Amino acid sequence: MKIIEGSVTAPEGFIAQGVCAEIKKQDKKDVAIIYSEDKCTAAGVFTKNKVRASCVDISRFHLQDGHAQAIVVNSGNANACTGEQGVADTVRMAELTAQLLDIGINDIIIASTGVIGVSMPMDKIEGGIRDAANNLSKEGAQNTACAIMTTDLVKKEIAVEIEIDGIPIKIGAIAKGSGMIHPNMATMLGFITTDADINSTCLQKLAKDSCDLSYNMISVDGDTSTNDMAIIMANGRAGNNRIENENSKEYHIFKKALDYVNITLAKQIARDGEGATRVIEVQVANAPNEITARTIGRSITTSSLVKSAIFGEDANWGRIIAAAGYSGADFDPSKTDIYLGNEKMASNGMGLVFDEDKARQELQKDTVIIKVDLKQGNENATAWGCDLSYDYVRINAAYRT
Amino acid sequence: MKIIEGSVTAPEGFIAQGVCAEIKKQDKKDVAIIYSEDKCTAAGVFTKNKVRASCVDISRFHLQDGHAQAIVVNSGNANACTGEQGVADTVRMAELTAQLLDIGINDIIIASTGVIGVSMPMDKIEGGIRDAANNLSKEGAQNTACAIMTTDLVKKEIAVEIEIDGIPIKIGAIAKGSGMIHPNMATMLGFITTDADINSTCLQKLAKDSCDLSYNMISVDGDTSTNDMAIIMANGRAGNNRIENENSKEYHIFKKALDYVNITLAKQIARDGEGATRVIEVQVANAPNEITARTIGRSITTSSLVKSAIFGEDANWGRIIAAAGYSGADFDPSKTDIYLGNEKMASNGMGLVFDEDKARQELQKDTVIIKVDLKQGNENATAWGCDLSYDYVRINAAYRT
Repeated sequence: MKIIEGSVTAPEGFIAQGVCAEIKKQDKKDVAIIYSEDKCTAAGVFTKNKVRASCVDISRFHLQDGHAQAIVVNSGNANACTGEQGVADTVRMAELTAQLLDIGINDIIIASTGVIGVSMPMDKIEGGIRDAANNLSKEGAQNTACAIMTTDLVKKEIAVEIEIDGIPIKIGAIAKGSGMIHPNMATMLGFITTDADINSTCLQKLAKDSCDLSYNMISVDGDTSTNDMAIIMANGRAGNNRIENENSKEYHIFKKALDYVNITLAKQIARDGEGATRVIEVQVANAPNEITARTIGRSITTSSLVKSAIFGEDANWGRIIAAAGYSGADFDPSKTDIYLGNEKMASNGMGLVFDEDKARQELQKDTVIIKVDLKQGNENATAWGCDLSYDYVRINAAYRT
Repeated sequence: MKIIEGSVTAPEGFIAQGVCAEIKKQDKKDVAIIYSEDKCTAAGVFTKNKVRASCVDISRFHLQDGHAQAIVVNSGNANACTGEQGVADTVRMAELTAQLLDIGINDIIIASTGVIGVSMPMDKIEGGIRDAANNLSKEGAQNTACAIMTTDLVKKEIAVEIEIDGIPIKIGAIAKGSGMIHPNMATMLGFITTDADINSTCLQKLAKDSCDLSYNMISVDGDTSTNDMAIIMANGRAGNNRIENENSKEYHIFKKALDYVNITLAKQIARDGEGATRVIEVQVANAPNEITARTIGRSITTSSLVKSAIFGEDANWGRIIAAAGYSGADFDPSKTDIYLGNEKMASNGMGLVFDEDKARQELQKDTVIIKVDLKQGNENATAWGCDLSYDYVRINAAYRT
């Protein structure tokens, strides 16, 4: 596998563009389209928040037949809690995009991200859609990555190339997410394109499993959003033998690359968390089952006390084990070891004397690795989050800052 | 019902003392005993964190027979994650206290609060126990309230007097809790004394139900502790007809007063949350069932985005409804109204134009009241929390501050 340029337009047959429609302030890109010249097999994973923007439900509805051909997205307004008008506006976005691209409205995925409860400025949105549709190109990927950003400091993009049966296959992706990140899904958006030929059942399984390893294992602040989705579109342009069997070697080669793409973007989201000064990576090992490993990992990355401690460069294993203990997972603390990097801080649930300097070095890294070895099975999971700093409060306590 | 002085020593037959044993720094009280001259009917509610200090399990064990006669407590050290030595130390505390007071070791409740993973300084602890046991008095209640504090800024105490069948009954209580508060139980301690005569079954139900309304509905940072407990001791000295029937008028009079006591202390804990500048009270009304109401209430008080917004005096109803939506509770957002004080901000899941000045006034109160009216049933619940400020981060990011 190799890393290549281009993100969502790297795979054959995909073009895109992001434009400024003046929804956000300051001359920023805020409307984009990703389009495949051929209809795609497509799959998606969506937020489970009961408070969902209409774009989530309508996109899910459009994806029922397992196909899509374009994604239209705006930032600056989530079009959530906007009632019937909001639904009409989502439909209008799809309708206009379908018209301009001359494809079926059912093949349009719609995504919005931004402030909740404010009506969409449809004149601007429509203007942006027209502008983007008229300027789709291979070069439009970066603008597209920018157009989906909200409080993100940096765009998040990646593309890789692999070989299946001697045929080059590309996977490209962009993502956004900063505050209100605790995916189950949660405001994170991930758009993945590929020229691989994959059937719908396999693509849906790949999408779900990959999200479970990546976006669903990150947390910035524990708040799950109203608008999250991860969408993958596969247009088959690479010409490989269709991947139709989840037990095949080809499926696994593709899966490995897709997981790499999604995990990389997920970590970028965690790193760009509001106010974050570093990523926290929690590796849970030797759990009795996968749910236990995941639950413990997520609990630790979500704990305000652990996050504050990491911000303060404090090797506070007590808070880590306490977070595991209240997670709801069933495990035996008296068999559990805790490491900071390679420095063992607790053995069988009790503290050890450890090298404070080594611990401090680990805590100053850009990714702080915490390992929790339960020694009670064979299952593992990794979760990511970020520290809790003054800047998180500053960013989110709008008026008093 | 009237408020009286004295907290845990207000009811007949209870004496107490808190002393400085130099476990904490700065000449602070850190060991205490609460003692009843007569054996009590007793009940307790304990943390469900899988990582539990031995004092939790041993106290629970001692309470199996429904009786107790003294509580011995230390602050400054949680005696958690301290292995076999920690267990031996907990037993030693009970043993020494039982010896000095000439009561059964099984009638001793032991509580510790403070740092996790450090061995107990038993010479100091034993010295403190002797000192407290030699100085028990009606006047010792305030010192006792101080001796259980850790990062608390203020002591938390209350006593009330009610009448049952013309007989005066007193209930006194102290509590502590600041960071690591998200009781299920979670480092909160609550000790309640009463001279009422109540049987064991009723007292256990009263304890559990009252904790469910009070301590289990507060959150400071979402982190549940390793050491929490709420203990109630009833010594019967008031001479009322024994309360034995949960459907009786007497049971309900007592319950009302006990709930008042526990809710008052729970709100004091929320107010004293690390870095808190105000309490957030979330009243969930007209839910289809109680679990839904509780779940939504707790989700909102735990949301970092809501907490930051309140700190910033930002009337951000979108974050409130999003927190309800990801809580896991089953409800219909499109029927839900949201109020800030009496100012309606959202109706049927959609935003309203509201009076920003009135909203700002509400947000500047010491207790900010958020009402969530689901309009889908008859069940209500109230949850409390506090805002998320720079000071929370400062307090918990030890080194970098």
